[in-house]
Amino acid sequence: MVIERNTSQVKKIIAKAKNKKLLVGFVPTMGALHPGHLSLVKEAKKKCGFVVVSIFVNPIQFGPKEDFSSYPRDFRNDEKLLRSEGVDLIFYPDCRNMYKEGFSTFVEEKRLSRFLCGQARPGHFKGVCTVLVKLFNIVSPDIAYLGSKDYQQAQIVKKMAADLDFSLKIKVLPIVREKNGLAMSSRNAYLSREEKDQAGCLYRALITAKKLVAAGETMSPKIITAIRRIILSEKHIRVDYIRIVDATTLENKSRVKGKVLVALAVYISGVRLIDNIVLNGKKVNAGKVHSRLSRQKGRK
Amino acid sequence: MVIERNTSQVKKIIAKAKNKKLLVGFVPTMGALHPGHLSLVKEAKKKCGFVVVSIFVNPIQFGPKEDFSSYPRDFRNDEKLLRSEGVDLIFYPDCRNMYKEGFSTFVEEKRLSRFLCGQARPGHFKGVCTVLVKLFNIVSPDIAYLGSKDYQQAQIVKKMAADLDFSLKIKVLPIVREKNGLAMSSRNAYLSREEKDQAGCLYRALITAKKLVAAGETMSPKIITAIRRIILSEKHIRVDYIRIVDATTLENKSRVKGKVLVALAVYISGVRLIDNIVLNGKKVNAGKVHSRLSRQKGRK
Repeated sequence: MVIERNTSQVKKIIAKAKNKKLLVGFVPTMGALHPGHLSLVKEAKKKCGFVVVSIFVNPIQFGPKEDFSSYPRDFRNDEKLLRSEGVDLIFYPDCRNMYKEGFSTFVEEKRLSRFLCGQARPGHFKGVCTVLVKLFNIVSPDIAYLGSKDYQQAQIVKKMAADLDFSLKIKVLPIVREKNGLAMSSRNAYLSREEKDQAGCLYRALITAKKLVAAGETMSPKIITAIRRIILSEKHIRVDYIRIVDATTLENKSRVKGKVLVALAVYISGVRLIDNIVLNGKKVNAGKVHSRLSRQKGRK
Repeated sequence: MVIERNTSQVKKIIAKAKNKKLLVGFVPTMGALHPGHLSLVKEAKKKCGFVVVSIFVNPIQFGPKEDFSSYPRDFRNDEKLLRSEGVDLIFYPDCRNMYKEGFSTFVEEKRLSRFLCGQARPGHFKGVCTVLVKLFNIVSPDIAYLGSKDYQQAQIVKKMAADLDFSLKIKVLPIVREKNGLAMSSRNAYLSREEKDQAGCLYRALITAKKLVAAGETMSPKIITAIRRIILSEKHIRVDYIRIVDATTLENKSRVKGKVLVALAVYISGVRLIDNIVLNGKKVNAGKVHSRLSRQKGRK
């Protein structure tokens, strides 16, 4: 496994892999890897002859009052995890090389970005799209892997890649969850044991929504009220949004009809968590529950 | 020479050329080709084993009151010219394929775009950057060729390509001029014989600036006044801007010191024309004067 910080070197290494006709799989991450990330890496390893993981906490996707400086970083552990997955190349760039003095070009998706997290985090998806265009140009992946905890992000990146004619496929894999249903996230590292337990209510609420829909409920406000009730039964949780939207356009749906996304964002003791479930009448995909409780550190 | 409208087909053809280890040279154009474009094509032919020219009048770089619908189009003649230059592939996409229903991703350079034409044409360079990111992703050129009549555009595209980590070189070639000094431009087709004669004042004015600087004048306002006087001696000319700016940052320079750009934009009977000259003490580059008067149509 090669660890490379230099963009030109990465391009050279990947050109060599492409010369050998290897399919390049790419998992862009901000590090602090957890089983959600590793599920993407495993899938990339299954399908691609050369697997690249980038680890870069991208400053321009954080708002001025957000947690850029405190965002969990643990390169040593990430390296260990990726080595054991058989990753070929870690791209671990320096911030000053990614955004050189006077950097002035930004990529913005303007439709899907208006909704959900785009409202609470202005500029967030612009930062995501910009860094991914850079990473796609550096890594030239054949397939890029994204997780569906960040459902909106995945939709936006797919739209951006299609609009800008990138020659890559984007695979979006299911949410990986803790035993209590909490969606795996690097930000879970901010939570105490007790807060993690509390946060299990998010998944319970989504499953309640699924059951309501399965039982024939179609009125979005009723479902949202049920979700809110479950979440607010826990202390110290503040709701940012709970929405039922069209799973493709992300526009609000007053009724559950066709493929819808039930998406929510909450703050638990100031930590922002998101989660979602896609519902489609009988067709439901809320990710698999990971078989064991996992912590960011100290695990194989 | 292949003419292809389909994006995926273009990608396939270019992948084949790359498999043969041919260097891909790319000249993006809006058609209505003139000797300025052809100088780029000739240079591409000299350096690259596979030369692609795109012909696409890009709607999103035109303002709502600009000349998108009347912009000169003459594919038959363009095709003839490019065939005789030995071009390998013309990419001639359809607008509905370039901007599919619901297109929503834009690329914006935010620093250099603030100046000069960026002020008179809000959104123009965003349209240029967006279409070029698309074209670069479709054509994957090793070298892209741009003309320096659009000096600001060339600087912005270089900045954008560097910021977004594109793996290509951008070559910017000198302005090609009519016998009277008028910079070649597809928009010259809008001008009558008499207006073209009048428009010769732009180059005379730039040469006057060059002479003033060579004679030791360094005060930008004095040079600008001299330019303005020459231009306004012609009837029916309205000045949009005449500026002396740093040739790299495009910021106004009150004194000619180091490498500066003298740039101007005027309207002749409603037709917007731009021109420029780079000055650097003794070092001057204002493009070569083309040996004969050329018309868009009817020439070999």
